[in-house]
Amino acid sequence: MAGLVEFKQHPSQTLKVGDGFALADVDPDATPGYAGNKADGQALLADLDGKLAELQERLFAESRFGGKKRILLVLQAMDTAGKGGIVNHVMATMDPQGVQFKAFKAPTDEEKSYDFLWRIEKAVPAAGMVGIFDRSHYEDVLIHRVHNWATPDELKRRYRAINEFEARQTDAGTKIIKVMLNISKDEQKSRLLARLDNPAKHWKYSSADLKERAFWGDYMDAYQAAFENTNSELAPWHVVPANKKWFARIAVQQLVLAALSDMKLEWPKAEFDVATERELTERS
Amino acid sequence: MAGLVEFKQHPSQTLKVGDGFALADVDPDATPGYAGNKADGQALLADLDGKLAELQERLFAESRFGGKKRILLVLQAMDTAGKGGIVNHVMATMDPQGVQFKAFKAPTDEEKSYDFLWRIEKAVPAAGMVGIFDRSHYEDVLIHRVHNWATPDELKRRYRAINEFEARQTDAGTKIIKVMLNISKDEQKSRLLARLDNPAKHWKYSSADLKERAFWGDYMDAYQAAFENTNSELAPWHVVPANKKWFARIAVQQLVLAALSDMKLEWPKAEFDVATERELTERS
Repeated sequence: MAGLVEFKQHPSQTLKVGDGFALADVDPDATPGYAGNKADGQALLADLDGKLAELQERLFAESRFGGKKRILLVLQAMDTAGKGGIVNHVMATMDPQGVQFKAFKAPTDEEKSYDFLWRIEKAVPAAGMVGIFDRSHYEDVLIHRVHNWATPDELKRRYRAINEFEARQTDAGTKIIKVMLNISKDEQKSRLLARLDNPAKHWKYSSADLKERAFWGDYMDAYQAAFENTNSELAPWHVVPANKKWFARIAVQQLVLAALSDMKLEWPKAEFDVATERELTERS
Repeated sequence: MAGLVEFKQHPSQTLKVGDGFALADVDPDATPGYAGNKADGQALLADLDGKLAELQERLFAESRFGGKKRILLVLQAMDTAGKGGIVNHVMATMDPQGVQFKAFKAPTDEEKSYDFLWRIEKAVPAAGMVGIFDRSHYEDVLIHRVHNWATPDELKRRYRAINEFEARQTDAGTKIIKVMLNISKDEQKSRLLARLDNPAKHWKYSSADLKERAFWGDYMDAYQAAFENTNSELAPWHVVPANKKWFARIAVQQLVLAALSDMKLEWPKAEFDVATERELTERS
């Protein structure tokens, strides 16, 4: 069996939004830093499942002894870009006990009666957890900007509020990983048509999807503005080319793995005398 | 490649608590209805992953169009019996978007200030979801009975309250699957010793485990009493022999699969005209 094809350059570097970043320059078909093909990517994904699960268990274990570290993966994307696939094929290998998944839909009447971060704060991960946001507080500066539901001044207030909110979460022990899955408008069309061709996918289709699709350019502008206003060293954005689903999955897996590895998680030391407990158990 | 070894008799029949059931008569080493070995069982488990995931997606999809069906898997067991393994190896193949996992620990002060079902009600699965309770309202008639934290009259009140609560959930569309993972006292000793021998497992060990272990017989009595008082046709108990982890996993998988199959879930029919939407998408 041939060896695994690894990344040559790490996605935390190649996909990170930096100064002068322009979304329009990113190729959604690219596989930056990775020379392998689909089969190579799938093999790499499967190979790292176990490592991801072990690191997540260490994170969880540490919190049982007072550790405050946690992860928050924020997933944003145009419809059909593959957020669900990331959750299912990358994150689902972790112990459900240690994962907090939250999908943010259009806000309820109650949610709308509060400031936009109210429902977000209630869903942040507890110590030791890996939180996943399928959409997030960024909707309030994306769809709201596209449809002019918020004035420019209000958008500025929200960017500032988001930055303060994320800085506070970071200070409290949360490593925030912000990901935009970047598909092309053509690729979205193919995926929508594929949904329409498969009766088992009809429930995922809504004609509202087409309405938002008509604002594609405005959405790209809103993403660009969000990157410019909410990218920070501690909570950076990553734009992940997502026309190739397999690439998006290995890229996000690498981002989460890197965040967990950086935490240098150790198994908690026994707070009991192992020999004594062994003897007591033997006799029990 | 040899074929899969299937169950000859279904766990929903062989493991179901019926009239005259005696926990003491159950062999935790047995593999009722299944003639295969560990490798056969693991192959069967892997083979049915996809089916389980598809049925769960149908359940979820149906709820998006007003369906009220849902699943609640209640897992109860002595420590080390493998609840976590069930969650990780059976249930984790489902889309996290459609799974509500809840581990019930010792109640907080706030929880204690309410009746015992208060915290349970807050965690029941929403329509379309698969809920998993790792421990449950049954702790209030198990550990509470063992340590006499509740009087016989209070236990009676709780059994009745549980039956009413479960009947109401069932009426609201929930299929409740109650599982006791049944390990032997000797098997627990081996597993506790294995935890002590592995530094990566020390965080899971607590000397409190040994304290509860000393009440083994009382716990078995409490389980027997719970079965006698809370077994019903619509929310029956299943006692799953769990000394062989692989068997417990395929048995619980079968129980969940049967519950989903019984629901006769269909993909929601398109509420739009497919040809029209196809044309609009093509032109978009």
